[in-house]
Amino acid sequence: MPQLAYVDGRITALRDATVHVEDRGLQFADALYEVAAVMNGELLDWEPHLARLRRNCAAIFIDFPMTDAALTAQAKRLVAANGHKDALLYLQLSRGVAKRDHSFPSAPRASLIMTVRRFDFAQRIGQQKTGVGVITVNDMRWQRVDMKTTGLLANVLAKQDAKAAGAFEAWMVSADGIVREGGSTNAYIVKDGAIITHPLSAHILPGIARATLLRLARDAQMTVIERPFSLDEALAADEALLTSTTAPLLPVVRIDGRPVGSGTPGPVAGRLAALVWDEIARQTGWRR
Amino acid sequence: MPQLAYVDGRITALRDATVHVEDRGLQFADALYEVAAVMNGELLDWEPHLARLRRNCAAIFIDFPMTDAALTAQAKRLVAANGHKDALLYLQLSRGVAKRDHSFPSAPRASLIMTVRRFDFAQRIGQQKTGVGVITVNDMRWQRVDMKTTGLLANVLAKQDAKAAGAFEAWMVSADGIVREGGSTNAYIVKDGAIITHPLSAHILPGIARATLLRLARDAQMTVIERPFSLDEALAADEALLTSTTAPLLPVVRIDGRPVGSGTPGPVAGRLAALVWDEIARQTGWRR
Repeated sequence: MPQLAYVDGRITALRDATVHVEDRGLQFADALYEVAAVMNGELLDWEPHLARLRRNCAAIFIDFPMTDAALTAQAKRLVAANGHKDALLYLQLSRGVAKRDHSFPSAPRASLIMTVRRFDFAQRIGQQKTGVGVITVNDMRWQRVDMKTTGLLANVLAKQDAKAAGAFEAWMVSADGIVREGGSTNAYIVKDGAIITHPLSAHILPGIARATLLRLARDAQMTVIERPFSLDEALAADEALLTSTTAPLLPVVRIDGRPVGSGTPGPVAGRLAALVWDEIARQTGWRR
Repeated sequence: MPQLAYVDGRITALRDATVHVEDRGLQFADALYEVAAVMNGELLDWEPHLARLRRNCAAIFIDFPMTDAALTAQAKRLVAANGHKDALLYLQLSRGVAKRDHSFPSAPRASLIMTVRRFDFAQRIGQQKTGVGVITVNDMRWQRVDMKTTGLLANVLAKQDAKAAGAFEAWMVSADGIVREGGSTNAYIVKDGAIITHPLSAHILPGIARATLLRLARDAQMTVIERPFSLDEALAADEALLTSTTAPLLPVVRIDGRPVGSGTPGPVAGRLAALVWDEIARQTGWRR
């Protein structure tokens, strides 16, 4: 079966899925995106993804092209048509196609693209046992990274640096030494039992996995503190963590080659991982 | 005659010109671009555009896909095929098509797109006589705007603000009050006869029209000072100017609704405009 994609109302073979060269997503990164997990054939946390997309559309004045129900139906249809049990749904919404001019076209019609690619979530279970390493880079991004836009070159370069260094992720550090987040993950440290993470602001993406983690931790009576933390604090932390749609919970055991705490996954990471995977199983029936 | 575009080696009708949905230009703004003026059927300043593109490719590790001579031949072929006397050539080079993953694909093949759209340069002669207004906005962009990448959403939003305010351009001002440049133009002030403009750095685009202007001014024994200037200085300047490929020289006569100097185009702008249009005529034979 060929892989299938969705482009502006039609499901087509992925290899034939195209957009016009004057799509504003291509010429201006004038586009938003979401990546949602498909586990056991079910979309995980779909409602929060949809709500974030809608919020971001309002922020940059892209007209949301259909009802939530219609978009949900199209997404589920594409997921079912591809038939993968475990996959990533990629959704991109641009301001549309228009003769190139920075300012908004007079009657834009948003373009919607979706692809589904198989993804192996089970690899995360193994990584969870060993932990992963991160490097640090200067945060070179624009000042509204709370919006999930496709202007990702700074993230691309950071994550390429991480890959070249054999690390899982690159943590982006502000000029004054604050760890903002990873290139595609949120960042956390654990100190004296408290889970510490950057507060929501224009400097970090409000991750869906982040919201889930903080909710589960609070429900379990764990201490959660949303405040900026520095790289120096991270290097002196008991544990460190990262989360994202593609990595629901991973212990960070090395930062720039230096061990975090014991240099192995700690007890808070273990407890949170159990909570996170139980929640995934509850929502989707997925079992490791 | 339908408009024509170039996509990866083929000339096709613009309406049929597409890229794959997994082009990294679309998903990551992992792409560079140039806009070159076609005047009287001739490409203006083509060599500097090509040199900048090649420099930027090296900076973000995109393999330049062909020789300068081959790219020049393809560009000229597309310009000739479209047949416009006055036009803009848009060229975009992305890292290529690959399954979505931030880090570089293992064997990327850069995608090259070119379009040609008719453009009315003569309108600038009229605007030169009246001058134009700019507004100011916070510079929200990333920290490497010297690279001409397609991550332009901050510029889009700034220029939309300008349009909504009835202004020609939005000047981007740093947190400490420095005027960096416009959303798609470089910025200048004139004080006591000296032309002052932001020095080349990671904070501004090294505009081709900027290089031309500074060269012509120096050749004419005018004083050019490359140093940062503040918005306060701009408001107290004798004159202000902007340049770009699409606006070779325009006097800025209002900033946020306040007049610059006399509120009308000044003598330095007039002298520079004459130099710039003479140079264009020399290169392309274009006459107003």
